[in-house]
Amino acid sequence: MYELGVVYRNIQRADRATADALAKLGSATVHEAMGRVGLMKPYMRPIYPGCQVSGTAVTVLLHPGDNWMMHVVAEQIQPGDIVVAAITAECTDGYFGDLLATSFQARGARALVIDAGVRDVKTLQEMNFPVWSKAISSKGCIKATIGSVNIPVVCAGMMVHPGDVIVADDDGVVCVPAAIAAKTLETATAREANEGEKRAKLASGILGLDMYKMREPLEKAGLRYID
Amino acid sequence: MYELGVVYRNIQRADRATADALAKLGSATVHEAMGRVGLMKPYMRPIYPGCQVSGTAVTVLLHPGDNWMMHVVAEQIQPGDIVVAAITAECTDGYFGDLLATSFQARGARALVIDAGVRDVKTLQEMNFPVWSKAISSKGCIKATIGSVNIPVVCAGMMVHPGDVIVADDDGVVCVPAAIAAKTLETATAREANEGEKRAKLASGILGLDMYKMREPLEKAGLRYID
Amino acid sequence: MYELGVVYRNIQRADRATADALAKLGSATVHEAMGRVGLMKPYMRPIYPGCQVSGTAVTVLLHPGDNWMMHVVAEQIQPGDIVVAAITAECTDGYFGDLLATSFQARGARALVIDAGVRDVKTLQEMNFPVWSKAISSKGCIKATIGSVNIPVVCAGMMVHPGDVIVADDDGVVCVPAAIAAKTLETATAREANEGEKRAKLASGILGLDMYKMREPLEKAGLRYID
Amino acid sequence: MYELGVVYRNIQRADRATADALAKLGSATVHEAMGRVGLMKPYMRPIYPGCQVSGTAVTVLLHPGDNWMMHVVAEQIQPGDIVVAAITAECTDGYFGDLLATSFQARGARALVIDAGVRDVKTLQEMNFPVWSKAISSKGCIKATIGSVNIPVVCAGMMVHPGDVIVADDDGVVCVPAAIAAKTLETATAREANEGEKRAKLASGILGLDMYKMREPLEKAGLRYID
Amino acid sequence: MYELGVVYRNIQRADRATADALAKLGSATVHEAMGRVGLMKPYMRPIYPGCQVSGTAVTVLLHPGDNWMMHVVAEQIQPGDIVVAAITAECTDGYFGDLLATSFQARGARALVIDAGVRDVKTLQEMNFPVWSKAISSKGCIKATIGSVNIPVVCAGMMVHPGDVIVADDDGVVCVPAAIAAKTLETATAREANEGEKRAKLASGILGLDMYKMREPLEKAGLRYID
Amino acid sequence: MYELGVVYRNIQRADRATADALAKLGSATVHEAMGRVGLMKPYMRPIYPGCQVSGTAVTVLLHPGDNWMMHVVAEQIQPGDIVVAAITAECTDGYFGDLLATSFQARGARALVIDAGVRDVKTLQEMNFPVWSKAISSKGCIKATIGSVNIPVVCAGMMVHPGDVIVADDDGVVCVPAAIAAKTLETATAREANEGEKRAKLASGILGLDMYKMREPLEKAGLRYID
Repeated sequence: MYELGVVYRNIQRADRATADALAKLGSATVHEAMGRVGLMKPYMRPIYPGCQVSGTAVTVLLHPGDNWMMHVVAEQIQPGDIVVAAITAECTDGYFGDLLATSFQARGARALVIDAGVRDVKTLQEMNFPVWSKAISSKGCIKATIGSVNIPVVCAGMMVHPGDVIVADDDGVVCVPAAIAAKTLETATAREANEGEKRAKLASGILGLDMYKMREPLEKAGLRYID
Repeated sequence: MYELGVVYRNIQRADRATADALAKLGSATVHEAMGRVGLMKPYMRPIYPGCQVSGTAVTVLLHPGDNWMMHVVAEQIQPGDIVVAAITAECTDGYFGDLLATSFQARGARALVIDAGVRDVKTLQEMNFPVWSKAISSKGCIKATIGSVNIPVVCAGMMVHPGDVIVADDDGVVCVPAAIAAKTLETATAREANEGEKRAKLASGILGLDMYKMREPLEKAGLRYID
Repeated sequence: MYELGVVYRNIQRADRATADALAKLGSATVHEAMGRVGLMKPYMRPIYPGCQVSGTAVTVLLHPGDNWMMHVVAEQIQPGDIVVAAITAECTDGYFGDLLATSFQARGARALVIDAGVRDVKTLQEMNFPVWSKAISSKGCIKATIGSVNIPVVCAGMMVHPGDVIVADDDGVVCVPAAIAAKTLETATAREANEGEKRAKLASGILGLDMYKMREPLEKAGLRYID
Repeated sequence: MYELGVVYRNIQRADRATADALAKLGSATVHEAMGRVGLMKPYMRPIYPGCQVSGTAVTVLLHPGDNWMMHVVAEQIQPGDIVVAAITAECTDGYFGDLLATSFQARGARALVIDAGVRDVKTLQEMNFPVWSKAISSKGCIKATIGSVNIPVVCAGMMVHPGDVIVADDDGVVCVPAAIAAKTLETATAREANEGEKRAKLASGILGLDMYKMREPLEKAGLRYID
Repeated sequence: MYELGVVYRNIQRADRATADALAKLGSATVHEAMGRVGLMKPYMRPIYPGCQVSGTAVTVLLHPGDNWMMHVVAEQIQPGDIVVAAITAECTDGYFGDLLATSFQARGARALVIDAGVRDVKTLQEMNFPVWSKAISSKGCIKATIGSVNIPVVCAGMMVHPGDVIVADDDGVVCVPAAIAAKTLETATAREANEGEKRAKLASGILGLDMYKMREPLEKAGLRYID
Repeated sequence: MYELGVVYRNIQRADRATADALAKLGSATVHEAMGRVGLMKPYMRPIYPGCQVSGTAVTVLLHPGDNWMMHVVAEQIQPGDIVVAAITAECTDGYFGDLLATSFQARGARALVIDAGVRDVKTLQEMNFPVWSKAISSKGCIKATIGSVNIPVVCAGMMVHPGDVIVADDDGVVCVPAAIAAKTLETATAREANEGEKRAKLASGILGLDMYKMREPLEKAGLRYID
């Protein structure tokens, strides 16, 4: 449930260095490091390919077809933040375009993650402002009903608290709670560390069956080979 | 994000009398009383029509295709509870059938709300055990991976904390946080109170345009009548 | 495109007797009689089974999440009308419930066809007020933006002009333009007339292959039987 | 891939007694007995609730919007058969209505399973002819292109060979290959046999945790209880 | 409803200069200028990014899986036209590929907007022939049933009359009725005019809250700031 | 239905030269040459544009959320193969990333076609390893349940037998049974042969109406021109 009509100005952001360091690990590795949780639903897609970012979440709750609160959240952005926008009902309207992106970018926002639609996608790409969204739509919004800023929200099926770390790339979007960001970074970095070695082995033709010692458990599980 | 592998045994349930009283008001009135928030997405549908229940949430987080934790949550059910089941990824498999329903019912559960599929729907109706789900599917589950019980979850787009009140009927499912359950009951009851009078007026032919005094604001908004 | 902010009070309704007579032929036969066109998309479903109605369309165009114009259209309803509601963008919110249904019924409306959601479905069934909709949802609407009444609209992929005949049953919803309603009734009645004879033949075991003389054209098309 | 333009007249049907006996076990138990495979996708739904049937498959492959082959397959039906209809591309048109149902029923068909739409659903229910389909639609079909009868087809994601056993109920549709029908019946019957005992235990309040001896494996998997 | 089997040869196209001038304003600005109406549904996507076109609509109505009328509409194309293709039922088949594109381009067509699928997308991009469609599919069509050319159609939820102006870009597709094209151009141009100034202000760090004077209305609507 | 827990090591692959030669004809032409069948559903999309491949199918059947068998299938890959992965229920999880792609590529696989999700899409593009999938998702898999390798599977609605030829490009994916691969290559090549001539005629302004001699059949079908 949501508290409506409030803007929390002071939020506890995750440690900056930790938040920044998670970007290069990517959403898949980070989600694995968390125990395979934390992902938004896969309908959240980048509006153009090739972006890989992380940052601290400022959240906004909006009503369907109404983007009034986007201007309210803009003021709460600090450099290094990623805006996470949730809607109280399903909506694909275009809540965000080049003007809001200009404002967000001026405030230091690194990206927008929105469970609805956006527009001006060509210009957003030219501005190098990454967006993950559910839809692309020219449909404009009205400014009639207030929502909230920096309350916990559900975006694309995932809970996001203000100050959590968001990691987003071409594979999807993951939310890392501030409280476990440091530990997640550590685990994810460790995972990443031995990936190079694994890749080299696999590239040389060694099979995962052997590298991961799967033959015995597969046989125990009943797998039969037939010539 | 989700804490995995934990079962919280002691949760703070919303006041019983309040939780029980919300059923008869229905999901639409309750959601309006909360400021038009709190609803799960409309893909959550009753597996058979005509049920209208409320109760306190016990929550369970499951993995796709794996219903092991359904047996774990069963033990945490108290009379008057509604089980709210969330999945870590999209899944339509049948997590729940007549055997689990027998167990849940024996523990005093009033209903299941699950962001996945269920089966044995004919028997569930005969047992008078209501379920709101995303799908109906014969597909069975494995029991291989642990999740959690009584942590905050996201079910069909809505945050549910253990102990919150769930109100579900043919129109949908709403979650009322325990902290505002009493106030919501009060507001919803007040809304309901004058519905009878309104209905009588409308049935007599009086228009909403007049009853709600909408003609002037519509004219101000620019509405023109053309003969 | 849509003309916004207007209410046309005087519309040319299709002939009453013709409009009424189309109900019993059903949506499938009527659509065939029109040359297999005129159907709304099959996501439009009755909120409860067993209704079969026809009537003259009064139309209303609404904005997403905003049902203000539902009160405006109520005043334009005449006995025998069916309200056809279109939305300017995709929306599943609950635009209509028991209070509006009471008002519509008092004005003589026979049904609602809406390209969005409705609520209070249990009460609507008790009131015997049929609705065809895209969704069922408790989500309430605001009253902030004006649309139009009795302009041509697109509902579930089909153009509907005010005064057209709507035929709706468990199979779907078809729109018959007023100008061809009489001819459609005639053609549909003729189609229906020989259905009884066909049914008797088929029930006796005569195959459609023989009754419709399909064996030769099938052979010409290249169909081969293999023993 | 599909062989086009052929009708196989002589197919090897699964043993009649076995095919008939599978109905009462239901789609969920049968699919479990097969190793949790064989199910069509859950979008296949009965057009009215409460049917539970089994029978031998006769298959038909149709083109989108073209139901010509439905008349060809009718001739190949034998008492106890269930017609399984696949389409070469996605389509929701109404391929089947009361006339074809009359013909199918006269030939002894028990049901239709179709990966497309049907119409006349009210009459089909009155005729007591069960159908599982992807959609309900008034949209009629043309008769212009030939397909095939009694070739292997893919229906709702599942391979069906002519003569396989189809089991369908409110939970879904499962296909049992003729070659393993007898063994599946045996396994499914065994599964069913001890369900009554389990149900009684669960109804008495015994938990699945204890009945299935899950506490130890859950602990080993790392589950922690927190008071 | 649709008139079948007719080709209107003489249609009233919107003024050429106006139609051409709308392209550079883009679908979002044009739709705002029309009062936030006129958009096709957001599932209509360009088959490759970066195109921005406008032109006068010639319309074609096709049957599912049948592209015969694409050859008929080709003859009615004049330089500066955009073909708008509607289908009488849901279909994702590939109605259009490089051969038809060659023909359309030879006639002077600027683009295709189709509520179905297309194929040869790589070649279409090489040919620089833009398409907005609902799907990409290799599935070919038959040529068996006639539809119509240059009748009013519904494409992706929007009414399009022959001669209307179509504006399409990466954000979507909007239809501007010929009768209001000039006025829409004027309004859209005015909107566009002061966007540069707004962008400069926002880029300098001025907030939309201040630039649009939203603080007072937000406070009146009840927004509270919490430190 | 599926045989579980087996790996067929010796499969009969389609003739190599034939399998290789089909790539350049593309999925649309090949599917036409087969009589307009053989296509997977259009939701199967390349994860990056511009790939056009063909190869012999090795198949793998997996359970939802479980990619254990991907390592088993890797060992069965021979140079020139394309892995076709089917899942026993709907799933969008990321079954495949850069490590498995390294292994597949080392074994000589040309591509992956999977009825589920994949991840590391940016790296896969850098590796030049093409994938056609239903989704992109960071969600990782477990390794708990065995499936099968080189049994007939259903992938995106199409039956694929081990050794069949897969042709995939930006338009979609088609499966050519090994038994008809040579004949399909011949037919497809013939179709392709006269496309250049047709394209030249159409580019010169000659209409399809005349080139295909459609005017007379259209008139017979009842098409009327109205000035």
